[in-house]
Amino acid sequence: MPARTNKREQILQAAVLSFGEVGFNSSSLREIAARCGVSHPGLLHHFPSKEALLTAVLEHRDTDERRWFPRSESGLDVLRNLIKLVEHNVTVPGLIGLYVLTAAEATNPAHPAHDYFQRRYARLRRDTRRALHRIRDEGDLHAGVDVEDAATMINALVDGLQVQWLLAPAEVDMPTILRRHLQSLVTRKL
Amino acid sequence: MPARTNKREQILQAAVLSFGEVGFNSSSLREIAARCGVSHPGLLHHFPSKEALLTAVLEHRDTDERRWFPRSESGLDVLRNLIKLVEHNVTVPGLIGLYVLTAAEATNPAHPAHDYFQRRYARLRRDTRRALHRIRDEGDLHAGVDVEDAATMINALVDGLQVQWLLAPAEVDMPTILRRHLQSLVTRKL
Repeated sequence: MPARTNKREQILQAAVLSFGEVGFNSSSLREIAARCGVSHPGLLHHFPSKEALLTAVLEHRDTDERRWFPRSESGLDVLRNLIKLVEHNVTVPGLIGLYVLTAAEATNPAHPAHDYFQRRYARLRRDTRRALHRIRDEGDLHAGVDVEDAATMINALVDGLQVQWLLAPAEVDMPTILRRHLQSLVTRKL
Repeated sequence: MPARTNKREQILQAAVLSFGEVGFNSSSLREIAARCGVSHPGLLHHFPSKEALLTAVLEHRDTDERRWFPRSESGLDVLRNLIKLVEHNVTVPGLIGLYVLTAAEATNPAHPAHDYFQRRYARLRRDTRRALHRIRDEGDLHAGVDVEDAATMINALVDGLQVQWLLAPAEVDMPTILRRHLQSLVTRKL
C-alpha cells in the first residue's frame, strides 16, 4: 500500500520539523497532523500517541545513522565515516535541530526519551572506545591518547559543534574541526 | 524592600527549574507562579511576560558567570577559571539543565533568545581566541595549535560534555576531561 506508507512518511517528516523547531514537549499531534495535511484521527491511526511518534522518529534516525557505520569497518574507518556523517549532517539542519533539542529535553528523567538517550550515549562512548582500541592495536594511535577520555570527547565535540553551527552556520565548520581533532589522535591520514 | 526582592528571586528560581525541566516553550507563567507560591498577577507585577522572565533568568546567569572571569586575568588564568567554573557547574545540575535546553531551543530563529545565544557564542569564541593568543604571546601555547579551531572546540567540548553528564553524571567527569584537553594545548601546568 504505497499511499499509506507515504502518509506515514509525511507524518514522520512533519514530526521531525515540529520536534526540532519547538521541542517534543511543546509539539501537539493536532499541529503535526495539520502540518502534513492529515486529519487528527488519520494521524492517530498511524501513531496512537506523541510518545509513539517520537519513538518512530528516533528509530528512523537510527536506521539512517547505521548506514554510515558498517559492522566490518576498521577503527580508522569508523573515524573516517564519522567525518562523512558530519559532512552529511551539514546538509540536513532540520534533523540536527531535532537531535540537539530532543537530546536536551531528554536530559530530564521524566522525558519519554530519557532512557533512549542514556543508552545511546553509553553505546556511542563504547563504540568509539572500541574503534580507538582497534586503532591502537594496529599501531596507528598517537602515544599518550587516553582512549576513555578521547571517546567521551569526540562525542561531546560533535554535539557541541552542532549547537554552535545551528546558531552560526557560516562561522562554524563542523566537519573540518572534527577532522582536525580526529587527525590529531592518529598517525595515519584520515 | 527585602520581601519584594526575595519574591523576585523566588520567581527566578522557579523559572530556572521550569525552563530547565520542560523548556521555555513548554513552560507557563501560571505554573511558575504556582511553583513558588506567588499569584499569577503577583508574578506579572515582577515579570510582565514569559520573555521578560527568560531575559531576567539569562541575565542572572550571566552575572554569575562573569564572577569567574575577572577582566585582568592572564590567558592561562582564563583556562584555569574555565575549569573552576565547570567544577562548580557539577554542583548546580539545575542550572546546567536550564542552559543546555534553552540553548537548544534557541537554535530556532523564532525563539526569543535566538539573538542572545548567537551573540553569546560569538563572544565565547572571541574571548577564548583572545586568551589563547595571549598564551601564545607568552610562549606557553604548544606549537601547532590552531587558535581559531581550538576556541570553537573548547566551547563545543564544554557544551557536549554537559549533555552526556546530565544523562550519566557518574560516568562523565566533565572537569577532568576539560582539564586534560586544555592541558594538552599549553606547555605550563594549569
